[in-house]
Amino acid sequence: MAKDLRNSRFATELIGVETNEQHAKKAVELGLVDRVESLEEAVKSADIILIAIPVDKTLKVLPKVLDLIESGTTVTDMGSTKKILVDSVANHNRRKNYVPAHPMSGTENSGPTAAEEGLFRGKITIICDQEESGPQHVALIEKMFQSLGMDIAYMTADEQDHSTAFVSHLPHAAAFALANAVQSKEDRNIIFDLASGGFRSTVRLAKSSGSMWHPIFQQNRTYVVEALNAYIKHLKEFRDCMKDENDEKLWSLIENANKIRSVLEGENPHLVKNEEKITKFYTK
Amino acid sequence: MAKDLRNSRFATELIGVETNEQHAKKAVELGLVDRVESLEEAVKSADIILIAIPVDKTLKVLPKVLDLIESGTTVTDMGSTKKILVDSVANHNRRKNYVPAHPMSGTENSGPTAAEEGLFRGKITIICDQEESGPQHVALIEKMFQSLGMDIAYMTADEQDHSTAFVSHLPHAAAFALANAVQSKEDRNIIFDLASGGFRSTVRLAKSSGSMWHPIFQQNRTYVVEALNAYIKHLKEFRDCMKDENDEKLWSLIENANKIRSVLEGENPHLVKNEEKITKFYTK
Repeated sequence: MAKDLRNSRFATELIGVETNEQHAKKAVELGLVDRVESLEEAVKSADIILIAIPVDKTLKVLPKVLDLIESGTTVTDMGSTKKILVDSVANHNRRKNYVPAHPMSGTENSGPTAAEEGLFRGKITIICDQEESGPQHVALIEKMFQSLGMDIAYMTADEQDHSTAFVSHLPHAAAFALANAVQSKEDRNIIFDLASGGFRSTVRLAKSSGSMWHPIFQQNRTYVVEALNAYIKHLKEFRDCMKDENDEKLWSLIENANKIRSVLEGENPHLVKNEEKITKFYTK
Repeated sequence: MAKDLRNSRFATELIGVETNEQHAKKAVELGLVDRVESLEEAVKSADIILIAIPVDKTLKVLPKVLDLIESGTTVTDMGSTKKILVDSVANHNRRKNYVPAHPMSGTENSGPTAAEEGLFRGKITIICDQEESGPQHVALIEKMFQSLGMDIAYMTADEQDHSTAFVSHLPHAAAFALANAVQSKEDRNIIFDLASGGFRSTVRLAKSSGSMWHPIFQQNRTYVVEALNAYIKHLKEFRDCMKDENDEKLWSLIENANKIRSVLEGENPHLVKNEEKITKFYTK
């Protein structure tokens, strides 16, 4: 995001805050940030503060940041879970400065060298509970995400946790379990020799870091359990069709699953689309 | 494969056999094949016959092809299941002309317009029960796949069905069930607006055609049910960790799943590697 914010000229100065010294050094070396400062120093001079750390850490850092900012500073975060977080600062006197956001794009890799230009282009950002944030702060954060070419969806923190449980957290849990199921087989070597494109793309998410995903599962426990239960139910249905040689029903399950193609490739009518009107800033 | 066999100059003449008239026309138009003929005509003039159709159809076509060929012709197929197929021709007097193969690469798309150059490069072909085929036929098929840049794994038809149940058929079943679980939710629109990269890559296989996959599941019933049971067990374990707030075990499940990274990116010692010694044919 730092790379793209600089490329779009939305950001002209980027200050990093990083506890890992090697990551800090690397981030400067790669030009992701101009310099690294302490949280206290960085917060003082920033117009926008982006918190992009594991969600358990955000829970500690966000109130601290809100304590430190001036009245005009805008704060946002990039976390995958929102309800616990917004509840934790509901009564903070700088709550209006904070715009809870979830830009839905990422990879299974982490650290400064994992940064990829254009990762967010054409993807969705969720902004949560926007009426709880000051309109100037919402506008600035919208403009920031639009400068990356992102579309914006608005919903409550609770709705976002429920929906992402299904479209993001469940696929990750499914990939972790698939990796474990396949690795539990004795003939590991044979299986891995054969790992083809289908297996690789399904299991890709299983490489994702525990320090990022463990707290997401903790913070969205109820909805992820609901999603896992729904998934297990559908897997059992599929398995029973196979076991009972119910070929007709097996066919209908595949046919129904195929409908995902038209939905994924179709238009989403109730989304605020960027329509390639990407905001690019040419002024210093 | 037709595209790449022509590019590598392994094949200089390609004859298609196709029951769907529009596909036949399109395949000639796209230059995938030089012409389309009846099965009987095509078999007569071919050196190698590649059967690349759904596995239930292969079961009918393979014995017919073996009935029609001359003594020197080589026959292979591209199907994902092998035990039932090799058993069905075990006593055919042309069994030695047939080399059961499974090139492990594909996409979720089908039909002549779905052809992708380079799809097989760096991927694995399984050759099954090679001692049941004549050595000249095995050599020719090896050479063909090597001309595409593929590595070769040798195993029995039964082993291939078991291994592919885990690394290929299970990921497809998992994707079909995931698509159904997510589509069963009421708030479809919201969910699909949010479908991000992780969801898309996990659910990609759910777009795969029923006419290809339904017979694969039928022919590999026992092993796919075994794989689904193992997967459901691991999913339940994951869900129970979350439900019971067993955070320590949840962490260890994610950590164990992460090991898939080193295995997928590591070396596979017992594979016959092409090592970029791709056979390219410059003679007519």
